[in-house]
Amino acid sequence: MRMVIIGGDAAGMSAASRFKRKAPDSEVIVLEQTQDVSYSACGMPYNIAVPDRDINDLVVRSAQIFRDKMDIDLRLGHRVTAIDPHSNNVSGESERGTFELDFDKLLIATGASPIVPDIPGIDLPGIMPLKNLEHGREIKQYLARNAVNRAVIIGMGYIALEMAEALRERGIEVAMVKPRPQLLPWMAPALSEMVKNELQAHDVQLHAGETIESVSVSGSDMEVVTSSTILSADFVLCAVGVKPNSELAAQAGLDLGPHQAIAVDRTMRTSHPDIYAAGDCADAFHVVSKERTWIPLALRANRAGWAVADHLLGREVDIPGVAGTAVFKVFGLEVATTGLNEQEAVAHGFEPRSVNIESINQAHSFQGRTEPIKVHLIGDARSGRLLGAQMVGRQGTALRINAAAVALSAEMSVDAFVQCDLAYAPPFGPVWDPLLTAANQLLKKL
Amino acid sequence: MRMVIIGGDAAGMSAASRFKRKAPDSEVIVLEQTQDVSYSACGMPYNIAVPDRDINDLVVRSAQIFRDKMDIDLRLGHRVTAIDPHSNNVSGESERGTFELDFDKLLIATGASPIVPDIPGIDLPGIMPLKNLEHGREIKQYLARNAVNRAVIIGMGYIALEMAEALRERGIEVAMVKPRPQLLPWMAPALSEMVKNELQAHDVQLHAGETIESVSVSGSDMEVVTSSTILSADFVLCAVGVKPNSELAAQAGLDLGPHQAIAVDRTMRTSHPDIYAAGDCADAFHVVSKERTWIPLALRANRAGWAVADHLLGREVDIPGVAGTAVFKVFGLEVATTGLNEQEAVAHGFEPRSVNIESINQAHSFQGRTEPIKVHLIGDARSGRLLGAQMVGRQGTALRINAAAVALSAEMSVDAFVQCDLAYAPPFGPVWDPLLTAANQLLKKL
Repeated sequence: MRMVIIGGDAAGMSAASRFKRKAPDSEVIVLEQTQDVSYSACGMPYNIAVPDRDINDLVVRSAQIFRDKMDIDLRLGHRVTAIDPHSNNVSGESERGTFELDFDKLLIATGASPIVPDIPGIDLPGIMPLKNLEHGREIKQYLARNAVNRAVIIGMGYIALEMAEALRERGIEVAMVKPRPQLLPWMAPALSEMVKNELQAHDVQLHAGETIESVSVSGSDMEVVTSSTILSADFVLCAVGVKPNSELAAQAGLDLGPHQAIAVDRTMRTSHPDIYAAGDCADAFHVVSKERTWIPLALRANRAGWAVADHLLGREVDIPGVAGTAVFKVFGLEVATTGLNEQEAVAHGFEPRSVNIESINQAHSFQGRTEPIKVHLIGDARSGRLLGAQMVGRQGTALRINAAAVALSAEMSVDAFVQCDLAYAPPFGPVWDPLLTAANQLLKKL
Repeated sequence: MRMVIIGGDAAGMSAASRFKRKAPDSEVIVLEQTQDVSYSACGMPYNIAVPDRDINDLVVRSAQIFRDKMDIDLRLGHRVTAIDPHSNNVSGESERGTFELDFDKLLIATGASPIVPDIPGIDLPGIMPLKNLEHGREIKQYLARNAVNRAVIIGMGYIALEMAEALRERGIEVAMVKPRPQLLPWMAPALSEMVKNELQAHDVQLHAGETIESVSVSGSDMEVVTSSTILSADFVLCAVGVKPNSELAAQAGLDLGPHQAIAVDRTMRTSHPDIYAAGDCADAFHVVSKERTWIPLALRANRAGWAVADHLLGREVDIPGVAGTAVFKVFGLEVATTGLNEQEAVAHGFEPRSVNIESINQAHSFQGRTEPIKVHLIGDARSGRLLGAQMVGRQGTALRINAAAVALSAEMSVDAFVQCDLAYAPPFGPVWDPLLTAANQLLKKL
């Protein structure tokens, strides 16, 4: 059997490795348009923060290892330009010219691309996105070769926030700008306020609610012109979000789902029986809403890649989907979320009730120093089910979210969740975990 | 209605506060034999570690607040000596002589006591247990008033280990001794080995597998004589475990459960319709085995106290029980467990399979420094269910156990657990949480 995979990052290489290991006689061809495979995209901000750390340190497994040790036919610099769903064939181009390949089974693992906002001057040099390793390399080189003292970040999502921290660590002044007024619109305001304060405590200038009118070059400076001010910069990061790379799939007539991601079933199969999709280009079912969603995250990409391999191997595959669990660090804060927020809950027909509580990260009896943890917890008044959780705090916050993530997968009621036997010892929290305290309060509203 | 509560710590005061708040016209009388109520027993080792920290810092809420603000009739120094289950009456003694009290409803919240091993000399001064705040006070005074350079700890449970750390922080040499050869017999050897190494790295002398023959005084020294050696000490901590204070209940003819703990149903009621029991003196159902168990822990005590109040208030109460989740810190290590271990799983009729894996606490891409986390995960070959988890590692280990604890409450299969959408970002772990990596491996054995 010949398996062709378009895209050599998390989903593509997970699928390739697992399939080839279990079916060594099969032919596995991976077509990757860049020169990079299998790297930690999420680690880029932490690498960029440290000037003398090699960006190639982010490569988890080299192309050579996939080729030599795993016998995968990995072709770098190969860009697929068309999928023919009738003759099971892909075509494209590489340095050597055009190519064509038949497949028995195809996996589309083309990932996502940074959204480029429609702003005059956005394509000037010195304005860069950050999604793939080549972007990371370009940013790192740019910072090494230019005297960058002031940066503007367009966007305030979690990559933007992680990059704000990375640039501040390099001593660069950072201003962030975006058109919508709320910092993290999916987050309860009581919690996003903590993030805002943390950014300001680290001298990050926030310009939320300002339309970006243009970017221009003035002498050796760049200028980001907003509806309220002009921000001078030596470097501009454009981090307004990503979109799924689903053009090839769309052209081949495959069904698309939310955000134009490639629609897949619980076996990762697209609307074509021989074509799979996995990773940031594909959609997923949401374990809470049971509906299609598009939440590009690394664990899902790896899991989906494995699922493709398993399904091709004839195993039973039934991936329930994602809860949308995400955590990130911004300076000294840990931010975590899982499940639906209130707006999403309403949109999916739930009757959400929510609470905001403040708890602590360690018992007072431990060392007498405690840090606040804020929790926003959401339940459904109709069914009593837990719908989502958000947390912000310092050390000892992020990992707590996993308890709620498992509860969502188990479709637990808030009533059942509050009875869970979570861990307690003074170094790790109060007797009632902050999530349980929130659940106790939420129960009164359900 | 008159509610009488024997014991004024976690379970007793939780029940008293909640009941009195919701039923302000009722009479709530708490009989506490010591002078302390509502304190953080778990915080004692951390307080003892710091000479100039006031031990009364551990008091969460003073007797005066319960009396004045909450209108609870709290009687300190009142020791109950008998319960008459036929006339609904308790009797006892206080400084002022004997007393008798009728009750409509009674809660026994008498806690647990340290086990005193049968060793000649164990009652010498300078040999102390640690369970209640008075013990903590005595230890702290003893350490303040005597030149303590060498301590021997009899026992190696988690209180013994926490106290080893506390005493080392005060610069005291520590030797630990116990008769059984394995450090933490409930733990997989691959994991307890890490704990052993950590103790030795902090110069704690371990004498496991040595019978303790006697304790004696020789001049100004104490001597702990074991089957292999003689350990000199200025202070001896006796921490061989605790037993439920169920004598009153037994004398009153109430049913007892495992370890002679007072048997209660899912509403915390004993075998007598007007008598409840909660906290360390009472048993619980185990969410995995569904059978009675005795695992004295603070969260359960609080929750059980609330449940008693709720049941008296006529609310529906159905406490599913405990998973046995426990975490503790020993020097730089975090140790966590939930559910059954393999021996327990066999004893409860499961067919356990287990794996040991080693993962990391942060992604390499974060700061290039990672610390190992070892996971021992247990599943049932017959049903596919997750049965238990154990973890040891440095920062970022303990809180992960909550994901497994929730999965146990939800009676999840390993297959379902492996699909849970746990958090990932480089500062907090690898893409696959260590528990998921273990679950992936465990699936192959089920």
